[in-house]
Amino acid sequence: MSEEPSTKPGSTLGDREREGVIELLGVIAYGAISGFTRLAADSELSKDLGLKTALAGMAVDEFAKHELLVTHIRELGGDPMEAMTPFVPAFDSFHARTAPRGLLEGLVKAYIGDGIANDFFREISAFVDDESRAIIAQAAGDGRRTEVIVDAVRRQIRADRHLAGPLALWGRRLVGEALSQGQLVAGERDALAELILGTSHSRPGAGLEEMGAIMQRLTDAHQQRMARLGLSA
Amino acid sequence: MSEEPSTKPGSTLGDREREGVIELLGVIAYGAISGFTRLAADSELSKDLGLKTALAGMAVDEFAKHELLVTHIRELGGDPMEAMTPFVPAFDSFHARTAPRGLLEGLVKAYIGDGIANDFFREISAFVDDESRAIIAQAAGDGRRTEVIVDAVRRQIRADRHLAGPLALWGRRLVGEALSQGQLVAGERDALAELILGTSHSRPGAGLEEMGAIMQRLTDAHQQRMARLGLSA
Repeated sequence: MSEEPSTKPGSTLGDREREGVIELLGVIAYGAISGFTRLAADSELSKDLGLKTALAGMAVDEFAKHELLVTHIRELGGDPMEAMTPFVPAFDSFHARTAPRGLLEGLVKAYIGDGIANDFFREISAFVDDESRAIIAQAAGDGRRTEVIVDAVRRQIRADRHLAGPLALWGRRLVGEALSQGQLVAGERDALAELILGTSHSRPGAGLEEMGAIMQRLTDAHQQRMARLGLSA
Repeated sequence: MSEEPSTKPGSTLGDREREGVIELLGVIAYGAISGFTRLAADSELSKDLGLKTALAGMAVDEFAKHELLVTHIRELGGDPMEAMTPFVPAFDSFHARTAPRGLLEGLVKAYIGDGIANDFFREISAFVDDESRAIIAQAAGDGRRTEVIVDAVRRQIRADRHLAGPLALWGRRLVGEALSQGQLVAGERDALAELILGTSHSRPGAGLEEMGAIMQRLTDAHQQRMARLGLSA
């Protein structure tokens, strides 16, 4: 963890580190637009007006995160569109491979997929400068608004116990796809890969051992989320 | 037009008028959620990251309008879900009958459809109390962010002149469907219909002659929007 005091955004970063941080912010910023789109589509599918507006509100939160990240990319001297573009195929491919067949699968995907993505971004933010870490922590949210989703999913499973098995499979597929796309994303850009895995520079990065510990924490938190939905992980 | 001074929201309204105003706010509030959904879907279809985020931003604006209207419905003592529910079928039917076959049709629909809807709401707001009229004026926006849409449509038509004919037909179909659904909406609830057409009470409403003038103004503004897109109305 870096503890340096600083006066302006990113002033503690070397050029190569700054490049990696901007790439990381680009990933998260495109992920937020992507999350906006998914939640808006879930909102469209909902017949319940209360759930519909709650999901639309969550989509709006994702867009606010996007704007926060885009602003910080500019503060670091980066171009937001350039920073996001390399990661478009990975996200679009993830979403194409995990297109929900209905609202219920969409809700599980929003909760499980966004949950593991936010955890991942928070873990990786340990390796960036203080300001960027604070921005990422804010963008990764605390998931309070997800209560609406958890309630809706649990209610539907209570009403029809046969939903639990297929939804548990769905949750496992989501996390498998998320982890494999996550590896692609991490390896997509050199500076980002160096940021995460560490180089000979002052900022250490994760290293392979720490990477294993991160994966374990991601998996544990995922299992807790599955349990909250009433699904076996 | 009402000129009464007032101390709290809706204090100048009789019970029946208040009912009509809440119904009108319910129409516009559901229209805003509906607009949010459409613009988010257009954002999803856009391959251009700049246009994609601009459309997402416009969707977010629609949600902000929705929240503004819902707050005012509550201030008037209404239940927002109850106020919106009667109008769900008319909006959903309009959108089902005018499902865009691609981004370009979606953009024309957003500009032409939202344009005529906002004009209509502003016209009708002449018959409500001052506070509600101010809220409706704010929610009906001034369309500044639509520049992005106008530019994108014009650019595509310039690149392929053959698009202009089918898009002009599409614009005419949209306005036809919007007007016929608008009549259904206006007639859906008694208090709302009284608000618009006037009763023997102090607040006069439009009357049939004024209604004709309103339709003429809506049509004129529609033709100006078509012209701005480079389409014949």
